[in-house]
Amino acid sequence: MSLVEGSSEAAAREVLDPDVWHYVSRGAGGNVSVGEAAGAWRTYRFRPRVLQDVRRVETDLELFGTWRTPIGIAPSAFHQLYTPAGELATAAAAFACGAPMVLSSRTTTRLEDVAAVIQGPWWFQVYVMRDPSITAATVRRARDAGASALVLTGDTPYVGYVPPTGTARPLPLTDELALANVAQHLPHEGVADIWELIDQDAGITVDTIEWLAKESGLPVIVKGILRGDEAIRCVEAGAGGIWVSNHGGRQLDGALPTARALPEVVAAVEGQVPVVVDGGIRSGTDALAALSLGASAVFLGRPVIWGLATDGQAGAERVVDEVTAQLRHAMGLAGATSLAQLDPSLVA
Amino acid sequence: MSLVEGSSEAAAREVLDPDVWHYVSRGAGGNVSVGEAAGAWRTYRFRPRVLQDVRRVETDLELFGTWRTPIGIAPSAFHQLYTPAGELATAAAAFACGAPMVLSSRTTTRLEDVAAVIQGPWWFQVYVMRDPSITAATVRRARDAGASALVLTGDTPYVGYVPPTGTARPLPLTDELALANVAQHLPHEGVADIWELIDQDAGITVDTIEWLAKESGLPVIVKGILRGDEAIRCVEAGAGGIWVSNHGGRQLDGALPTARALPEVVAAVEGQVPVVVDGGIRSGTDALAALSLGASAVFLGRPVIWGLATDGQAGAERVVDEVTAQLRHAMGLAGATSLAQLDPSLVA
Amino acid sequence: MSLVEGSSEAAAREVLDPDVWHYVSRGAGGNVSVGEAAGAWRTYRFRPRVLQDVRRVETDLELFGTWRTPIGIAPSAFHQLYTPAGELATAAAAFACGAPMVLSSRTTTRLEDVAAVIQGPWWFQVYVMRDPSITAATVRRARDAGASALVLTGDTPYVGYVPPTGTARPLPLTDELALANVAQHLPHEGVADIWELIDQDAGITVDTIEWLAKESGLPVIVKGILRGDEAIRCVEAGAGGIWVSNHGGRQLDGALPTARALPEVVAAVEGQVPVVVDGGIRSGTDALAALSLGASAVFLGRPVIWGLATDGQAGAERVVDEVTAQLRHAMGLAGATSLAQLDPSLVA
Amino acid sequence: MSLVEGSSEAAAREVLDPDVWHYVSRGAGGNVSVGEAAGAWRTYRFRPRVLQDVRRVETDLELFGTWRTPIGIAPSAFHQLYTPAGELATAAAAFACGAPMVLSSRTTTRLEDVAAVIQGPWWFQVYVMRDPSITAATVRRARDAGASALVLTGDTPYVGYVPPTGTARPLPLTDELALANVAQHLPHEGVADIWELIDQDAGITVDTIEWLAKESGLPVIVKGILRGDEAIRCVEAGAGGIWVSNHGGRQLDGALPTARALPEVVAAVEGQVPVVVDGGIRSGTDALAALSLGASAVFLGRPVIWGLATDGQAGAERVVDEVTAQLRHAMGLAGATSLAQLDPSLVA
Ligand SMILES: Cc1cc2nc3c(=O)[nH]c(=O)nc-3n(C[C@H](O)[C@H](O)[C@H](O)COP(=O)(O)O)c2cc1C
Ligand SMILES: Cc1cc2nc3c(=O)[nH]c(=O)nc-3n(C[C@H](O)[C@H](O)[C@H](O)COP(=O)(O)O)c2cc1C
Ligand SMILES: Cc1cc2nc3c(=O)[nH]c(=O)nc-3n(C[C@H](O)[C@H](O)[C@H](O)COP(=O)(O)O)c2cc1C
Ligand SMILES: Cc1cc2nc3c(=O)[nH]c(=O)nc-3n(C[C@H](O)[C@H](O)[C@H](O)COP(=O)(O)O)c2cc1C
Repeated sequence: MSLVEGSSEAAAREVLDPDVWHYVSRGAGGNVSVGEAAGAWRTYRFRPRVLQDVRRVETDLELFGTWRTPIGIAPSAFHQLYTPAGELATAAAAFACGAPMVLSSRTTTRLEDVAAVIQGPWWFQVYVMRDPSITAATVRRARDAGASALVLTGDTPYVGYVPPTGTARPLPLTDELALANVAQHLPHEGVADIWELIDQDAGITVDTIEWLAKESGLPVIVKGILRGDEAIRCVEAGAGGIWVSNHGGRQLDGALPTARALPEVVAAVEGQVPVVVDGGIRSGTDALAALSLGASAVFLGRPVIWGLATDGQAGAERVVDEVTAQLRHAMGLAGATSLAQLDPSLVA
Repeated sequence: MSLVEGSSEAAAREVLDPDVWHYVSRGAGGNVSVGEAAGAWRTYRFRPRVLQDVRRVETDLELFGTWRTPIGIAPSAFHQLYTPAGELATAAAAFACGAPMVLSSRTTTRLEDVAAVIQGPWWFQVYVMRDPSITAATVRRARDAGASALVLTGDTPYVGYVPPTGTARPLPLTDELALANVAQHLPHEGVADIWELIDQDAGITVDTIEWLAKESGLPVIVKGILRGDEAIRCVEAGAGGIWVSNHGGRQLDGALPTARALPEVVAAVEGQVPVVVDGGIRSGTDALAALSLGASAVFLGRPVIWGLATDGQAGAERVVDEVTAQLRHAMGLAGATSLAQLDPSLVA
Repeated sequence: MSLVEGSSEAAAREVLDPDVWHYVSRGAGGNVSVGEAAGAWRTYRFRPRVLQDVRRVETDLELFGTWRTPIGIAPSAFHQLYTPAGELATAAAAFACGAPMVLSSRTTTRLEDVAAVIQGPWWFQVYVMRDPSITAATVRRARDAGASALVLTGDTPYVGYVPPTGTARPLPLTDELALANVAQHLPHEGVADIWELIDQDAGITVDTIEWLAKESGLPVIVKGILRGDEAIRCVEAGAGGIWVSNHGGRQLDGALPTARALPEVVAAVEGQVPVVVDGGIRSGTDALAALSLGASAVFLGRPVIWGLATDGQAGAERVVDEVTAQLRHAMGLAGATSLAQLDPSLVA
Repeated sequence: MSLVEGSSEAAAREVLDPDVWHYVSRGAGGNVSVGEAAGAWRTYRFRPRVLQDVRRVETDLELFGTWRTPIGIAPSAFHQLYTPAGELATAAAAFACGAPMVLSSRTTTRLEDVAAVIQGPWWFQVYVMRDPSITAATVRRARDAGASALVLTGDTPYVGYVPPTGTARPLPLTDELALANVAQHLPHEGVADIWELIDQDAGITVDTIEWLAKESGLPVIVKGILRGDEAIRCVEAGAGGIWVSNHGGRQLDGALPTARALPEVVAAVEGQVPVVVDGGIRSGTDALAALSLGASAVFLGRPVIWGLATDGQAGAERVVDEVTAQLRHAMGLAGATSLAQLDPSLVA
């Protein structure tokens, strides 16, 4: 089952600047992980229940907020690369769909402006910057602007290696846009160091979880987990949730597909905190597999970008709505009427 | 081993209207299940017995009737789409071959007319409609017309999702034809609701099994089972047989191939009721695998339609006869002279 | 590792009549088994021993005769289809190579004439014909002509199904040639029945093993075994050897590749009698895998025919010699200097 | 992740004489092992740790010498085929990179001259020649010239079989070059026997390990091990290290990929001696897999030759440096800051 035609990968490729397209679609290294992510979900098969009353199928969800769908929007950087309204479009789409949205640390819009278009909770993704005071200030701003959870990206001590292609040029992004969210925290002088200040701090450890929780008063979900023991280590360090991800294949190339990693993480966590997942989810049946295997929600990265690129807010909405509709349809055919009824026995 | 040349998939494609062809050949969603069904049987290999007296190989079968072959005709809708004589041609072919035929609830001919061309038993497939009195009346008619079993399709609370293709048009089917079997039960007025009345009832449960048995006095085989626990649940609710099927890949896309599901279901049922199977059976060796793994009979869906399309009754007959001949030939080479001698040790 | 270039499959295809080529290369049914036979050996990998003294590597073998190589010639019908000297060329090649040869029941030369070109033992392949007296007479003649073992083909109660191709014509073979070996046993009158008399008897059982042993005084190897329990059944019925084969994929299509079946059969037989194997062996490393897994010898079917077709006796010799040379070379690199040193630990 | 563009396989192919190219790139037999080596590493997936302080990632290594990287240079013959400075270029590159280099027994430069360009240890690869006194003299010279370990190639009692291609010609190598390292030990007369004298001795056994250790006073690493029991046999015979290799697929074709063999060998050796590995390592993530699975170092064969061919010493340096950089990057993303922190749990 593929996404709505008008917001497809092919449609996005046609409208995007080739360098932007390459930035969005590429993974890291040899593109092993990015290339296999979606296929890994399709290795699962369904074992439906039959003869259940499925006249009403609900996808409602409580997860650091109340949502109408477990199909969320993963954090991704710099949405004005895709549509003029940038993150405003994304946020409006998320709100319209009743979907959880995670705003990236790297946005082309101030988070307060983004928050303003959502009449309810949202989550804020955190990169701890080399100057931790900037991060501290930012997460406080996020809390004040209505964020109900933080998502600490744990798989990015530094940016994943991308082999030189010969033809790639820098992203068409002004400093002003690239720095929109953090500009207010930067020193007015000594500009030579700016990029260094806001670069990821490769030295952060699990202690960061407590620190963020304390600074913001918000639950901290750790993103980028692919093993059970790491999930437990984060939970013991205070994590309020675990996000199984290999960063869309953009960090350690060859990292396990999330479709393979999810069951181990769910088993290790034993329900102490919710587990969510992203990576290669492209349809309602992909989502059905993930949710049946124990994810509380799934997140779309590139598909939402495709939607933004092809049709701004409406495009992003179509993507989330369509995957939600596919999920609801598939749940009924599998004999389930609520997310609570999904369990691993539905998957082989 | 492929089907007889003159009734092949390619031959049918040539003669059928493209929309009808698409309707027949497509699955649901991303066509995962429809695409892998036949190949899943070919993953099995045979472990033949040798030096057995195989001068006479029989394929006789008792299964809610007496048949000369375990190669049956699965229920499919609207046969006048394929050949002018519609279900009359199919029924005549089944009778000529000594094969079990299942008449769909959705036919282009009144069931009584179809029954008239068969001098013996047949099975009737049931969709419970939103107005249950129509279904009740229909199954009583089927019993009166000689049906020896009901096949309750359990995997279709509603019709499987088919992504819009842009070019697909409605089937070339008049209301009169589409309603042939149920017209007599429809109210003469309030036509606006008709399609709603006869649509599947998404609310039916296993209680439907007892209800149908009581209304008709016939054994009820539940079709669309892919897991052992679901088979048991149906048996406990009164099912007289289990039909392993994913509806030709037309319902929940990504549902387990029946070739993979069959052994689990057979093991769970432990011989309490017969188990039959359909999906991707295209040759006598596919049938040999299924029967060895514990199916009492196998059913052909699309191949019979190809036969009807290319040559009406004769075409359908050629398909069933040829697969039966291939099965008989293969049984002998495997050292078996009757269906009772087939066992799982023949398959690896 | 492929065969010598001048005697390759491609070279044979060029010189042979297309109908003969089709007869040789095709399998039965959907060509599943014939298509996967060679590849199945290539799924094995070697675990060589190192630092062994391998200055002398021997391939000598005692197996119902004394041979210089375990690379034998499998029985195949009608060699005058491939080279004017027919089976005389094959036999001379076998003798020159010191290789065991199995003469088919279906030859274009009288077995006495074939035997005359071999100064030593050979094996005779048996199809039990509907008139058993013909078979009885033939095996006695074989014994008298120096055969040291019989090979009873157990997988052919009748000839495997070949789907009609539309273009295939009968083999270019006169009755005289086709009947060369049995003509002397046929009644002079009632010619209409001849082909029926010499057709395989589909009614033979394991009792045939004792009968043949008694008629000929020779050990009986049963050919066509793919399962351990069947091997044991034959051994208990008096078999002197077991030949793992699926008849080059020409009988039950989809029968297990011999590369997969061999280990089970070897394990079941527990050394009570020797086990040999054929099917898809195309190089010395294929042979190394088979011999390591417990085969006492391996047999080439089609490759010898390619050799005959391209260059008569010399071509057949090149094939057997080259595979033997490859085997000897590979044995040394695996750290083995005799067939006795090959064991399953060499294979993964 | 592929190698640096300027030193790639494709770049080397363009500059090398076709016969030399074929000599470098080919494997033995049917090229099964050479063809699958690299892909076998890519079947592994990573299970990274997150939220570790990875500001400093070190690749330092003690292993019969002190090195800055575990990416070593495997022994290969005749480097003047690739670059005019031959082994001098290779040695200088190894020293510049801080990488372990193994000098082949078959060089186009006297080992003393090679050793002179390295200000530190290096390893010497040993083929025991039919005249053992030549080998004895050579290993003593190696020790005197600063070698810190011997690498006894155990998988080459004779050179692996290469099927005739019809077009291949002898390597463009004068006798003088081919004999550079051993000329001083050859008798001045009786030249007809020279190649025989220096050919591998197919009769050597594990006793050679002790003999070499005694002659040279150096630890002896046995190269060409693919099974645990063979590793133990060598360790018990005095080996100071085990080198898992199938000789780049150039000896027994179909020998196990080293990526599959490594875990068994590491498990068997139980840390008694270090284990290293080569074969198909083409990137830092390939190296990460090998090192995580228990290798102390990994060695590059052909990639260094590609570097030499495209740009002499600088090309070889780029290859080793780039793979080291990729490894260091990947280690950090996997949460490890030193080789000691790599363990099998990082790999699935
Ligand atoms: C263009 C792009 C930018 C991204 N930026 C971020 C980011 O700023 N922070 C983050 O935690 N993840 C980021 N991600 C990773 C996504 O959150 C998510 O893990 C990934 O895209 C999911 O895989 P999918 O694209 O296959 O759905 C980015 C992904 C893409 C494709
Ligand atoms: C065109 C078409 C119409 C079908 N209609 C029905 C139906 O009315 N009722 C039903 O239970 N199954 C229906 N099926 C499913 C078949 O009974 C059967 O499960 C399936 O076709 C078997 O797979 P095969 O086509 O690969 O042999 C239909 C299948 C096709 C292809
Ligand atoms: C053209 C042809 C004719 C054959 N005729 C006989 C035969 O007469 N008797 C018999 O036992 N097997 C016969 N076989 C089977 C071979 O003995 C052998 O099992 C098979 O060819 C081995 O597989 P390979 O061709 O892949 O090496 C024949 C095979 C071929 C290809
Ligand atoms: C052209 C060539 C020459 C080689 N010569 C030697 C040699 O002289 N001694 C030796 O032990 N291994 C030799 N090898 C094998 C390498 O040491 C190493 O095992 C192999 O190349 C590793 O695989 P890779 O090429 O895939 O990295 C040679 C390999 C190649 C490609």
